[in-house]
Amino acid sequence: MTRSLLELFRPSSIALVGATDKSGWSLSTFQNLRDHQFAGKVYLVNPRTEVVHGETAHRSLTDIGEPVDLAFVMVPTTAVLSVLREGAGLGIRNYVVLTAGFGETGPAGKRLEDEIVAFAVEHGLTVLGPNGNGYINAAGRTTPYGLPIPAPLQSGPVGVVLQSGALASSVLSFAQARNVGLSLLTSMGNEAMVSVTDVMSYLVDDPDTKVIALFLESVRHPAEFARVCLRAARAGKPVVALKIGTSALASHTAQAHTGALVGDDRVIDAAFRRFGVVRVHSLEDLIITAGLLASVGRVDGRRLGVVTPSGGASEIIADRAEQEGLELPAFAPSTVERLAAIVPDFATVQNPLDVTGYVVVDRTLLGRALEVVAQDPGIDAVLLLNDLPRVAPADPSVTLQIAGATAERIRRSRVPVVVVSNVLADITEFGRYVQAQTGFPHVAGGIEHGMTAIGNVVRWSEAVRQVRDVAPAAEPAPAGPGEVWAEHRSARLLAGHGIPVVPAELAADEAEAVAAAERFGYPVVLKAAAEGLGHKSDIGGVRLGLTGPDEVRAAHREVVAALRAHGHADAATLVQPQRRGGVELLVGVVRDPAWGLTMAIGLGGVWVEVLRDTALRLLPVTPEDVRAALAELRGYGLLTGARGAEPADLGRLSEVIARIGEVAVELGPRLSALEVNPLLVAGSRVEALDALVTWA
Amino acid sequence: MTRSLLELFRPSSIALVGATDKSGWSLSTFQNLRDHQFAGKVYLVNPRTEVVHGETAHRSLTDIGEPVDLAFVMVPTTAVLSVLREGAGLGIRNYVVLTAGFGETGPAGKRLEDEIVAFAVEHGLTVLGPNGNGYINAAGRTTPYGLPIPAPLQSGPVGVVLQSGALASSVLSFAQARNVGLSLLTSMGNEAMVSVTDVMSYLVDDPDTKVIALFLESVRHPAEFARVCLRAARAGKPVVALKIGTSALASHTAQAHTGALVGDDRVIDAAFRRFGVVRVHSLEDLIITAGLLASVGRVDGRRLGVVTPSGGASEIIADRAEQEGLELPAFAPSTVERLAAIVPDFATVQNPLDVTGYVVVDRTLLGRALEVVAQDPGIDAVLLLNDLPRVAPADPSVTLQIAGATAERIRRSRVPVVVVSNVLADITEFGRYVQAQTGFPHVAGGIEHGMTAIGNVVRWSEAVRQVRDVAPAAEPAPAGPGEVWAEHRSARLLAGHGIPVVPAELAADEAEAVAAAERFGYPVVLKAAAEGLGHKSDIGGVRLGLTGPDEVRAAHREVVAALRAHGHADAATLVQPQRRGGVELLVGVVRDPAWGLTMAIGLGGVWVEVLRDTALRLLPVTPEDVRAALAELRGYGLLTGARGAEPADLGRLSEVIARIGEVAVELGPRLSALEVNPLLVAGSRVEALDALVTWA
Repeated sequence: MTRSLLELFRPSSIALVGATDKSGWSLSTFQNLRDHQFAGKVYLVNPRTEVVHGETAHRSLTDIGEPVDLAFVMVPTTAVLSVLREGAGLGIRNYVVLTAGFGETGPAGKRLEDEIVAFAVEHGLTVLGPNGNGYINAAGRTTPYGLPIPAPLQSGPVGVVLQSGALASSVLSFAQARNVGLSLLTSMGNEAMVSVTDVMSYLVDDPDTKVIALFLESVRHPAEFARVCLRAARAGKPVVALKIGTSALASHTAQAHTGALVGDDRVIDAAFRRFGVVRVHSLEDLIITAGLLASVGRVDGRRLGVVTPSGGASEIIADRAEQEGLELPAFAPSTVERLAAIVPDFATVQNPLDVTGYVVVDRTLLGRALEVVAQDPGIDAVLLLNDLPRVAPADPSVTLQIAGATAERIRRSRVPVVVVSNVLADITEFGRYVQAQTGFPHVAGGIEHGMTAIGNVVRWSEAVRQVRDVAPAAEPAPAGPGEVWAEHRSARLLAGHGIPVVPAELAADEAEAVAAAERFGYPVVLKAAAEGLGHKSDIGGVRLGLTGPDEVRAAHREVVAALRAHGHADAATLVQPQRRGGVELLVGVVRDPAWGLTMAIGLGGVWVEVLRDTALRLLPVTPEDVRAALAELRGYGLLTGARGAEPADLGRLSEVIARIGEVAVELGPRLSALEVNPLLVAGSRVEALDALVTWA
Repeated sequence: MTRSLLELFRPSSIALVGATDKSGWSLSTFQNLRDHQFAGKVYLVNPRTEVVHGETAHRSLTDIGEPVDLAFVMVPTTAVLSVLREGAGLGIRNYVVLTAGFGETGPAGKRLEDEIVAFAVEHGLTVLGPNGNGYINAAGRTTPYGLPIPAPLQSGPVGVVLQSGALASSVLSFAQARNVGLSLLTSMGNEAMVSVTDVMSYLVDDPDTKVIALFLESVRHPAEFARVCLRAARAGKPVVALKIGTSALASHTAQAHTGALVGDDRVIDAAFRRFGVVRVHSLEDLIITAGLLASVGRVDGRRLGVVTPSGGASEIIADRAEQEGLELPAFAPSTVERLAAIVPDFATVQNPLDVTGYVVVDRTLLGRALEVVAQDPGIDAVLLLNDLPRVAPADPSVTLQIAGATAERIRRSRVPVVVVSNVLADITEFGRYVQAQTGFPHVAGGIEHGMTAIGNVVRWSEAVRQVRDVAPAAEPAPAGPGEVWAEHRSARLLAGHGIPVVPAELAADEAEAVAAAERFGYPVVLKAAAEGLGHKSDIGGVRLGLTGPDEVRAAHREVVAALRAHGHADAATLVQPQRRGGVELLVGVVRDPAWGLTMAIGLGGVWVEVLRDTALRLLPVTPEDVRAALAELRGYGLLTGARGAEPADLGRLSEVIARIGEVAVELGPRLSALEVNPLLVAGSRVEALDALVTWA
């Protein structure tokens, strides 16, 4: 359910219920509303004290006698429901519940929480929390938030949603240190009613918000999350997320090969990629990337022109650019010529450009070089390495003039200009002053995080162009214990759906096996065939390279014996021609409990078993998606002719793999897993050599 | 040459030669010496102006008429030598040359620079620079440094040496933002005379310095660098280095397989590992890691107890710990019991520990939990997540009391306690005050960089225990065009040095080839044998799996024809028994121009050709070194029994590989490269199947 949160986040009057001088939360909330200039009315409610925080308190909500838009609830856990009852009777529709002791404490608390939600739903109330700090609507100067908010509260384009209370304050501090203004910051608490996706949806529609930044412990409503991310992408609003739990990988165990490939943290990567979400891995990158996206928006490509006053910094930037997949193309001859006329004789004109320490003598040097580089026809964006001043000089006028001139050049630039500082140190009060006075743009904090942020801007710019045409994933079906179809049945199913499959014949006895082998021609492969049998090789059920009738007979005999020994009464074998050459791949589809059908593509053998070298994608996938996934593989070179191999027809291969994805979707919600392993590619010949379908 | 720099860095009087109101460098240097309380005399020298920077100037060094310990030279390029001449005559032995226009500008400038060095050597002068900013001896309040030094200049345990002028100011700013005090900061300039290794050597002996932090564009004197790093390790002083140029990898091309493995940036990794240098990859990590090493020193292991007030932060820490190879073991039962008595009922007692937001109510909670966790018998260090306050409250006494109590607990702790803040924001003036008043320890800046720093401390602690017994690498010999020895000759050489090599016989004709094959038994391998032949397979000169005399005869005929077609008149073949099973490795040794003999160890085939999955080590290596290198390989699982393979006898394998390294050393300075490819391991059987020796 996506609810409108306009009233929750934009109240004209707020009652602090349970306000008391004894509580730091109460005092902070009260001070926040006062110090950050909430324009509406604030009422303090305490049944037993006449004066709280130096103001006259009301004995109850009823006692206020005026309309209240939002109740901020800090009463004991067992008293929360009665506050809602009273409020509902008075027509108060919105609540922030700071009180803890609910679902986070165990089953008893969860029952209290459920009661509150049931009451709220019944009476059309909106409840944020419980067990959350509240929110900060910086744009609206509305700050019902239970922890201190350090001044200055900078309003701006970044909306922040956190599944954490304690980290909200860190994010707030850090955003202020970066001079990144916030539209709204919400500490979600238990998400009993209002969820992360609800707030995201509000932010997509919020005109004050350009970028949505998330701290996520878990994605509770994947389908809703997908929908709101796609809506954000269509609105051109980037979603940046720090999703924790990468180390949870180790805790996952799975039986089947495909199973081992999914259910891990990389499925989150696949989902985020699919829905255009930028994943970051630190709180610093969350805010720095969000700040930069809010400031520069989209860029058209990966080609970066770099202007710095330092050779050392230029080389750090070059190293980081390579890691981020950014290109630093050579400047056009006209650019080189114009730069040569500007920089000192001993400077080397190249990209990245070091205009040298002569910036100390000629403070216009960097800005003039920027203007030239920004006009180079071969770049998509400029990186300008430029620290904001930290301390005000005795006469700040020159500093302001230089910064103003640079800001003007950046505004006039044909391509986006990203300003990056050398190191991640706070933007000081004077730095903020310079930005405010001159319109100097956002400064990404430090080369290290700044380059990550530029990489993220480029990747988002590419992703958002693709994300529009893809529908969100279907709701996942529940997965139960599986029914495994034998290879011949699985293969027949795939063949019937247009997947090229190696020919095969079932053999009930030795004579049938030999007859089949003679029809295919030697050498042949003989495999165990029995319903419910998973990995045949585990019971010695795969015999390769049989070159004559005697070998076929012996193999049939042994495999049947092995099958019977493992309790398969319906023992038979499957005979296929033996294929030679080419490269073997694995294509596995499983139904992830959160994100639905997910495909793993990898090279077979050691590549997947030792290296776990696979690329994951949520279904559906296009052949283009598959091609990009193949190019991610560490063993990709094997498909393009490394070691003298015949290059694979990547177009044909991608089509077949994409078709396998389509088949998985077509097979409907009972499909639990589908694995083609190996899928053989030799030039333009693409053929499934084995297949396994599991049903829920 | 390692020179004593005591006089250079600890002068009692300084003359600023070329001082002028027109130069920002001159003014900054003068103000730095004045504002940061240089206790000695400062003389301004200008031949044409009576008053400079508001002080009476001297017309020349001679005109001063008092002893001068250090001349800080800012005169025009062509006048520098005459200043040295005058100074030498007056007995002034130390010079910092800020003036640019020397070697960095081209051959003409290089000649001027050489003249200065020649003069200085002849007259026993010490010259830092030219083209450097000077230095900051913070411990000695001696700051002849040409760019502004922001206040406060914090003296402390970190010595910084930079091959960059512009970045020196960034590093200085950032160290101040982290409240990391410096002993000495030196901007090296052109290193015409005083080199990075000279300053490092000074810092190893400097009692004010506990940690050495480097920004390196290149390691100019590898052997000296190795020696001083080993000296630092023996003195227990960590060396932390940001060495740029990782992207230079792409620019290296090489013909031979082994050649392609070395000469790249990973050789720097191997060298740093060998000499106990901690490599970092950002300016932030340089200072944060150095600051932490200076604060906590060595830790005994990788097991970390984590105490935080936040579930979200705990999970970020868990993710990062896994990436850094740190362990978060479960707490001992007694620890769990004692913690359960401290934390709120609804808290979960586990490692990482979240004591919950009740820290807002009970500000002693975090400190008390720290005390318990620090006593857990199963951990080597504690991570305490604790931000310093940013803004002074109206009454700071409670804040100071809490911080003081925590600091006291940290001092009393059995294991090192690392304090980490949530995010990388500056330590503010009030934060510095709290640290100064309470002895609150160093705070590593933010979880992201803090975890990197903890990982670095652990890795350095392990490395420094091993580094002591290893001698520095020999000076590299010049590598010329190579003489390539044929396989049989190379293999005989190795066999003669105790390397197990597959049996082989040279065959001059078909009959000899068949006779050899009969002696070995089929199947056999037949290979081209000719002096000067590199990779035999390139000319179709390797025939595998020959099963009878006819096949051997045909193979001999064809290989000899191929050899003759490629101009090898001395065409013969080499016959060997064909080995089956096992895992193939590549062991290559090349002579790196900077670091000497370097070994690459990898798995053969796709592993090295497609994945470049190799581990590099400088020689010599012990079997233990080799074993650690093998464990680094992505395909390591193949050696330990993955995919049903016979596990390799890693002890035997490591001994053979280490022996190959010894042989390379024994073969002397003419050895250019030695490659064993493949080295076959099957259980405890280890055998070189092919070898190639190249001489300079």
